[in-house]
Amino acid sequence: MDTATKAAIPQVSFDTSPDRYRHWKLTFDGPVATLSMDVQEDAGLSPDYRLKLNSYDLGVDIELADAVQRIRFEHPEVHSVVITSLKERVFCAGANIFMLRGSTHAWKVNFCKFTNETRLAIEDASANSGIKFLAALNGICAGGGYELALACDEIFLVDDGNSAVSLPETPLLGVLPGTGGLTRVVDKRKVRRDLADFFGTVAEGVKGKRAVEWRLVDAIYPTSQFKQRVAARAQELAAKSDRPASGPGITLTPLTPTVTGDRVTYSAVDLGIDRDKRVATLTVTGPSGHQPGDAREIQSMGDQFWALRAFRELDDAILRMRTAEPLIGTVLVKTRGDHDTMLRVDELLLANKDHWLVREIMHFMKRTLKRLDLTSRSFFALIEPGSCFAGSLFELALAADRSYMLDDAEQENTIALSPMNAGALPMSNGLTRLQTRFLSQPEQVDKVLERNGPFDPQGALDAGLVSFAPDDIDWEDEVRLAIESRVALSPDALTGMEANLRFAGPETMETKIFGRLTAWQNWIFIRPNAVGAKGALTAYGSQSRPEFDFNRT
Amino acid sequence: MDTATKAAIPQVSFDTSPDRYRHWKLTFDGPVATLSMDVQEDAGLSPDYRLKLNSYDLGVDIELADAVQRIRFEHPEVHSVVITSLKERVFCAGANIFMLRGSTHAWKVNFCKFTNETRLAIEDASANSGIKFLAALNGICAGGGYELALACDEIFLVDDGNSAVSLPETPLLGVLPGTGGLTRVVDKRKVRRDLADFFGTVAEGVKGKRAVEWRLVDAIYPTSQFKQRVAARAQELAAKSDRPASGPGITLTPLTPTVTGDRVTYSAVDLGIDRDKRVATLTVTGPSGHQPGDAREIQSMGDQFWALRAFRELDDAILRMRTAEPLIGTVLVKTRGDHDTMLRVDELLLANKDHWLVREIMHFMKRTLKRLDLTSRSFFALIEPGSCFAGSLFELALAADRSYMLDDAEQENTIALSPMNAGALPMSNGLTRLQTRFLSQPEQVDKVLERNGPFDPQGALDAGLVSFAPDDIDWEDEVRLAIESRVALSPDALTGMEANLRFAGPETMETKIFGRLTAWQNWIFIRPNAVGAKGALTAYGSQSRPEFDFNRT
Repeated sequence: MDTATKAAIPQVSFDTSPDRYRHWKLTFDGPVATLSMDVQEDAGLSPDYRLKLNSYDLGVDIELADAVQRIRFEHPEVHSVVITSLKERVFCAGANIFMLRGSTHAWKVNFCKFTNETRLAIEDASANSGIKFLAALNGICAGGGYELALACDEIFLVDDGNSAVSLPETPLLGVLPGTGGLTRVVDKRKVRRDLADFFGTVAEGVKGKRAVEWRLVDAIYPTSQFKQRVAARAQELAAKSDRPASGPGITLTPLTPTVTGDRVTYSAVDLGIDRDKRVATLTVTGPSGHQPGDAREIQSMGDQFWALRAFRELDDAILRMRTAEPLIGTVLVKTRGDHDTMLRVDELLLANKDHWLVREIMHFMKRTLKRLDLTSRSFFALIEPGSCFAGSLFELALAADRSYMLDDAEQENTIALSPMNAGALPMSNGLTRLQTRFLSQPEQVDKVLERNGPFDPQGALDAGLVSFAPDDIDWEDEVRLAIESRVALSPDALTGMEANLRFAGPETMETKIFGRLTAWQNWIFIRPNAVGAKGALTAYGSQSRPEFDFNRT
Repeated sequence: MDTATKAAIPQVSFDTSPDRYRHWKLTFDGPVATLSMDVQEDAGLSPDYRLKLNSYDLGVDIELADAVQRIRFEHPEVHSVVITSLKERVFCAGANIFMLRGSTHAWKVNFCKFTNETRLAIEDASANSGIKFLAALNGICAGGGYELALACDEIFLVDDGNSAVSLPETPLLGVLPGTGGLTRVVDKRKVRRDLADFFGTVAEGVKGKRAVEWRLVDAIYPTSQFKQRVAARAQELAAKSDRPASGPGITLTPLTPTVTGDRVTYSAVDLGIDRDKRVATLTVTGPSGHQPGDAREIQSMGDQFWALRAFRELDDAILRMRTAEPLIGTVLVKTRGDHDTMLRVDELLLANKDHWLVREIMHFMKRTLKRLDLTSRSFFALIEPGSCFAGSLFELALAADRSYMLDDAEQENTIALSPMNAGALPMSNGLTRLQTRFLSQPEQVDKVLERNGPFDPQGALDAGLVSFAPDDIDWEDEVRLAIESRVALSPDALTGMEANLRFAGPETMETKIFGRLTAWQNWIFIRPNAVGAKGALTAYGSQSRPEFDFNRT
C-alpha cells in the first residue's frame, strides 16, 4: 500500500515572491524579462536530496510558476521572456531523480501535475497574453529541462560541441518524460514519430545541426554569438506584442489565510476539512459592496478586486488540498453571496476584456477552474438558499462531478448564467463547460444562455443545469447518502473514472498531456521495473544496474 | 514483479468457426442475423473459473470477433445484426471477475485490448460496411455486457421492472469499465457527465424510463412486445443498407500455419521467435503469380486472394505473439516479393473498392494495421534488397517505430508508394500514416504520393519516408546496436513511450479508448486497492470486504 501519511508529506507553501526566490533570478530590460535558473543545491524542500546541476523539485517549480504569474500581472511592459541558466555549461538537468525516488507515488503524481500546469501557464501566456517565451539553452538540457524548453515558443541551443537536448527518462530511469515531453515533441513541435522514437531512447540526446533538422530546437548558435542572437530575437518577438508599452502593473500581495488544524480561511474562500469523514467543504463567497465601474478602477483596486482576489484564494486552496490533504476524497462545493453583484462583476469583466489587466484576470479565472477540473478529488456542488451559483461562480457547479439543488417551496433558491459562461472560461478540451455538458444537444447551450433571469430548482433541473433537485424532505438524506457512498469507493477507481468522464468531446494537446501521457506515466511510476528494489529509478546513481522483468504488457 | 511465465499463459487459438462455437449461436433470417449469447459455464479457457450468468473470458470474445468477421465476409445479404442472450432474464454479466482476479497483469491488459478491438470492429462494420447492430437487452446487462451494447448502434432494454444496465466496476470491483465503457457513455452516447458519474457509481445501475431519459438506452419495451419491436427495428435498419440483397459470400477457411517451437509459418507470413534475444522477425511476402483482373475474379478466389490471405495471416500472427510471447519486446518487420505485382494488387483493390467484398478486404487490411499500431512491442522495419515495401505493404514500415533502409551501391533496394497509402488505411487517429508522419509538413504527403516510381535509399531518406539509410559498411553494426539497445530498455517505459509517440495529431473516440481510458485502467489494475490482498477485485465474492488506502493520487 502507498504509505503516504500526513507526517511524511512536506508542508508546502505556494506563496512566494521574487525577493524570496532561492532558485531563479528575474531581471528586466525594457520589454524583455530574463528568468535565470540558478538552483541552490541545498535548498530543496527536503534535506534528503541535493539539487545538483539545476535539477528541480516542487519548490523550484513554485518559484517558476510565481515568476510567470508576476510577469503577467506586475509587468505589463514585458513582451517577451528569455528562460536561461546561470550555471556554466548546464541549462537544466530535469526533475531531481533522488527526490523522485524518495517520494510516495501520490507525491510524484502531484508534482508532475503541478509542473505540467506551470508549463501550460507559460503556453497560455503566449497564446493569450502577448508574451513570447524563448528557451536559451546555454548548456546541457535534459529531461524536465527540455520539457520546460518545449513549453516555450522558440528553443535556442548553444552550439559548443557538447550541449545537447535529451529526454533520458526512458533509457536511464525506466520512466516517461511525463511533464508533457512526449506529447509536445510530436504534437507541438511535430517531430517525426520515428525520429522522436530514436531521440526518446538515447540518453545522450541530440545536438548541433541534427537537433535543428529534427525540429527539436529552432536554431543553434556558437557560444560567442549565443546571448546576442537570443537577445535580438527576444526584441523582435517583443515588438509584435499587444501588451501596453509601459506599466504600471499591479502588485500581487501575499495571501494571508487563517490556518487552523482543520480550516483554511481566506477573505472570499473557506476550506473546511473533516478528516474523519474524508470530506472537505470549499465555500466561495461572491462579490459584495462597491464594485469598480471600469478598467481604471479595477486597476486601482489591484489584487483586491474580487475576481482576482477570490480566484487567487481558490487556486491556493486547491493546491494546498492537493498536497497537504491526500486523504480528502470528496469536496463539497458551496457558494454564498449576492447574484446581482456577481452578475455585475461578470458584465464589468466582459465590457473591459480588452484591457490588459482584465484580460489577465479572466485568463487566471480560467486557469484556476482548469486546475479544479484536473484535481483528482470528487466534487459535489451543493446549491442551497443564499448561495451564489451565478455566472462565473456557476462554473464551479459545472466543474463539479455532480450538483444537488435544494427544492424547498419555503425558500428561494436559484442559479443564473451570464455571458461569462459562453466562452471566456473554457476547459482543457477547448469547449466551455456548458458545451461539454450538452454534447448531446448543442442547441441547449444557446437556449440556457439566452434566458434572461434566474432558474429555480425545477427550471434548472429541466434545463439540464443541475444533476438532482431533491425537495426539503429528501435533501438531507439524499445528500448524506451520496457523500457516504462516494467516500466508501476505491479512490483509484474514482480518479480514473473522473479523468475519463470529465473531458468528453474533443481532445487538445492539454488533455492529451493530462489524459494519455499522465495516465501512462502514473502506471509506469508504480511498476517494479521503475520503482521496485531493482528498478531503474531505484538503481540510478548506485553501483547496481537495473534488472527488468521483460514481459511486455 | 509480474510473474507471467511461459507456463502460466493459456495457449489460445484465435481460429474458430460457427460450428465450433461454445458460447454463441449465429442464426440468419433474411437480412437480419441474430447473435445470441449462451455462455457455457464450464467451457472457459481455464478450469479455474466458471462463466456464470453469461460472463465472458477471452475465448467467448474470440467467438464474437469471429462471428462479426464471418457476417461481413460470408453473409453479404445480412444488413443488420441483433445481439441478444438465450439466458432467462440475463443479457450478460460482463467480463468474468474470477478470470480477471486469477490473471497476470499482462493477461488482463491484453484481454481488454482484444475485447476493445472486437467492439471497434463492430463499429467499423456499422460505419463502413452497411451492417447495423442492435443490442437487445433481454435481461440484466452489467459491465462488459453493457460495454458490448454500447458498441452497437442502438440499445433496447426490456422493461420488466428488474432488468437494468450498469457499470458496476467502480463500486463493486474498484476498477474501471475499461472496454470503452466510460468513453462511449460520454463521447458516443453523449450521456451528460454528471449523470454518467452517478451511473458509474451505482452497482445496481439504471433501468426503465430513466435509462432512456439519460440516453443510456434508446428505448424500453415491455416483455410481451420486446422481441417483436426489436425485430421490426432490425428490419427497418436493414432496409437502409447498401450491401447486396443476396449472397453468396466467400468462405473464411481455417488458417493452417506450421507451428514449431520458435516459428509460425503461414503461406505469406512468417513469424520467427528468438527468445534468448527477445526479438521476433515478422516477414510478409507480397503477392506473386497470376492476380485477379476484376471483382468477380477476386470473389471466386475467395480467401485465397493475396490481400485477404496475407492480412488474415498477419492478424493471426500479431494476436499469437501478443498472448503467447510476452517476452518478445522487439519485432523486426521484413517483406519480400515483387513491387510491381504488389502495386497492381493495390490498383485492383482501388478500382473495385465499391464492390462489397473488396470493400470488406480493404477494411480488414486497415483493421489489421491498426492492430499492429496498438501492439505494445517495438517494431523496426528493415528494408533490404528483395523486400517488398510497396503500397499497402509500405504501411508496415510506416507503422513501425523506426525503419532502416540499406543503402548499398551494389544492390538495388527501393520502396514505393501507391494510392492505397492515400486514405484507405487510416490509423485510429483518423489520419493516414503518411499524414501522421508529416504533421510538420502536410504538403509533403501529396508530394511523395505524386511521385511516379520507386525511391532509392537516399531518395527515401530525403523524402522523410525512412528513418535511417546506413550504407553496406555500417548496416550490420547499426542495426545490431539499435536492436541490442532497444531490448535492454524497460519494457514498461517503452510501452508508454510508444503509446504516446505513435498517435500524434487528432484524437478520436478510438484513440481516447486506447490512450486515456486504457492507460488509466492499466494503472488501476496494478493498484493494491484493486488487486492487493485486501483490494476490491480480490475481495469480490468472498466473505471479506475490501479495505482501501484512501489516499487520493
